[in-house]
Amino acid sequence: MTSVVTRRETPPIGPVVGMVGAGQLARMTQQAAIALGIDLRVLANSFDESAARVIADTRLGDYRDLDVLRAFAEGCDAITFDHEHVPTGHIEALTAEGVAVRPGAEALVHAQDKAVMRERLTAMGVPCPAWARVSGREDLEAFGKEHGWPVVLKAVRGGYDGRGVWVCSSPEEAAEVLDSGTELMAEAFVPFERELAVLVARSPHGQGVSYPVVETVQQDGICVEVIAPAPGLDPEDAAQAQHIALKIANGLGVTGLLAVEMFQLPGGKVVVNELAMRPHNSGHWTIEGSRTSQFEQHLRAVLDLPLGSPAPVAPVVVMVNVLGGADPGVFGRYEHVMAHDPGVKIHFYGKEVRPGRKIGHVTAFGTDLDEVRARARHAAVHLATGEYV
Amino acid sequence: MTSVVTRRETPPIGPVVGMVGAGQLARMTQQAAIALGIDLRVLANSFDESAARVIADTRLGDYRDLDVLRAFAEGCDAITFDHEHVPTGHIEALTAEGVAVRPGAEALVHAQDKAVMRERLTAMGVPCPAWARVSGREDLEAFGKEHGWPVVLKAVRGGYDGRGVWVCSSPEEAAEVLDSGTELMAEAFVPFERELAVLVARSPHGQGVSYPVVETVQQDGICVEVIAPAPGLDPEDAAQAQHIALKIANGLGVTGLLAVEMFQLPGGKVVVNELAMRPHNSGHWTIEGSRTSQFEQHLRAVLDLPLGSPAPVAPVVVMVNVLGGADPGVFGRYEHVMAHDPGVKIHFYGKEVRPGRKIGHVTAFGTDLDEVRARARHAAVHLATGEYV
Repeated sequence: MTSVVTRRETPPIGPVVGMVGAGQLARMTQQAAIALGIDLRVLANSFDESAARVIADTRLGDYRDLDVLRAFAEGCDAITFDHEHVPTGHIEALTAEGVAVRPGAEALVHAQDKAVMRERLTAMGVPCPAWARVSGREDLEAFGKEHGWPVVLKAVRGGYDGRGVWVCSSPEEAAEVLDSGTELMAEAFVPFERELAVLVARSPHGQGVSYPVVETVQQDGICVEVIAPAPGLDPEDAAQAQHIALKIANGLGVTGLLAVEMFQLPGGKVVVNELAMRPHNSGHWTIEGSRTSQFEQHLRAVLDLPLGSPAPVAPVVVMVNVLGGADPGVFGRYEHVMAHDPGVKIHFYGKEVRPGRKIGHVTAFGTDLDEVRARARHAAVHLATGEYV
Repeated sequence: MTSVVTRRETPPIGPVVGMVGAGQLARMTQQAAIALGIDLRVLANSFDESAARVIADTRLGDYRDLDVLRAFAEGCDAITFDHEHVPTGHIEALTAEGVAVRPGAEALVHAQDKAVMRERLTAMGVPCPAWARVSGREDLEAFGKEHGWPVVLKAVRGGYDGRGVWVCSSPEEAAEVLDSGTELMAEAFVPFERELAVLVARSPHGQGVSYPVVETVQQDGICVEVIAPAPGLDPEDAAQAQHIALKIANGLGVTGLLAVEMFQLPGGKVVVNELAMRPHNSGHWTIEGSRTSQFEQHLRAVLDLPLGSPAPVAPVVVMVNVLGGADPGVFGRYEHVMAHDPGVKIHFYGKEVRPGRKIGHVTAFGTDLDEVRARARHAAVHLATGEYV
């Protein structure tokens, strides 16, 4: 008879990387870990999570509990993250106990605390929007008076995918948020032409690599489309954006990936919007679109292995996210998408379909931007909704 | 506290494919399953096996036991194979009970029984070496007299990677094998120029796709190098080889992948050597070298989904196997290989290193054959031995 699926611990053959969190980023990291013979271990909340479904060494536990993290880290050559919510103090404690946590607490805090990030980037001379901490209506009014309305209010900690960000046209609109007790900061609204992102990797030994600058398209604060490389970007502006991202990675002592989200202003210059220190939605195109996927790059970096080539494999790569629609029957729609376009790559994250939830993405390749973009959109929309666009 | 790694069954989100066997082919299939949101389940002998290390839904059991196969198949949308050793009768029994086994017994027997394969291909008019069943010294002498020496003796069932194949210059050399009780056949020795392989996929609905013809280099019966596409191959000869492979897939009713190993004769024509009905060493280059990896293609085919584009992503792709050397410290040698060549892709199968064992492969890409081949060989040799070639 077959055994039930009770797994004893298997001694590892290769290096062991522990990733805290078991969402789609950990899931896609497993694809890279399989190739490199790295044992990937994840800390999940449940065996139903995206990565837990596909990773043999899944442990259940609460990442907010230091003892859980200690037990999880045992036997790992490096610890890294699928999300940025692990308390800074826990990371410091693990590091003090000799665990190789990458990125470390000193770097990671800049992706966890937007005010700390703004202070540091400002001190480094990195272009940022005007900003200030605000602790009440008076602060906000003063900020709006100086920098104009609308003002972008942000939760200093914990926001993602548009959550924790409020664009306010007046102090009245901000009343509810101001009264909520959330630690807040204000930023000047940037009248950007478009959004760009630069993904870089940095190893503990200091090797740095930058992927090509991409254009990202957001809807309701969620990244829905990425075009690599960013179309029509002036090579000098591209070099400047990459320079800024590598400078930040170096200045903050990042180990692993750093995604730098930027606004491009009329005239071409960029200002930095957000930082993420992990594989990032703006880098999903690299799975098939670059010689080294961001997930492999992250594993190399956290294990202090030499970094891989970020070269793209096609002149144009477009990634479009699949957001859950009303009808959860995604698999029934593979038929059309695959038959319609044998070259499009489908990624489905093994998550329950809920409206608006990121449940997958598709990637298309080619030479003509409009054609590639239309193909990727067609596939993503059909998978999500069953419609033909 | 973290739980121990005891996993309860998680209800699947997507289709479930069960793969019998947990070697490196199942391991690499998991990379493709992760992308497509397919739940891959494997039947392993132990949790130490290559695929068992990286697949959450690993079941232990003996594939020679029909009850084990029945329990394994429960809840699977399709059953397929990492190897060709499952008894034909068991596959027939499962099929009769309504399990979608792909390939089915009628097709698979041609990859399990070389004499059945030769009878069928000969009847289909597919070019093969002269061959005959032999049951003793007299048969062999008669065959050698008619077709010349050396004669290639083959075990009708169970051989792979050069095992079960003996090149004999005289009946005396074959004495031990002839006396062993193994069911044997003889084939004329083919004075080939080189070896080629054609990988095709066929779906239950009959869609067929052929990858480009590749050149394979064998040492001691083990595939050590694959060049895609086969250099200098006349387009008509290439088309003919692809036509033969697709004809076989259709004629035998293959569902899933079919690898057709061929000898190319002086003058360009081919004769068929061996068949495999699963992902194959000659197709590992497709993981990064083709728009659709052979592992994704196999999953699509066994689930009767439309097949993916087999287009290569670079003019020259070379795959070189990593065979275990005397020093098992492969990971310590990542450092040189990755620093030396940021574009080479390393695959390590999570298997214990033993001399001569296939433990991984590397893939390189480019435009110049000599340069790409040198890069792939350098990486593979260094990983295996620590030497610089």
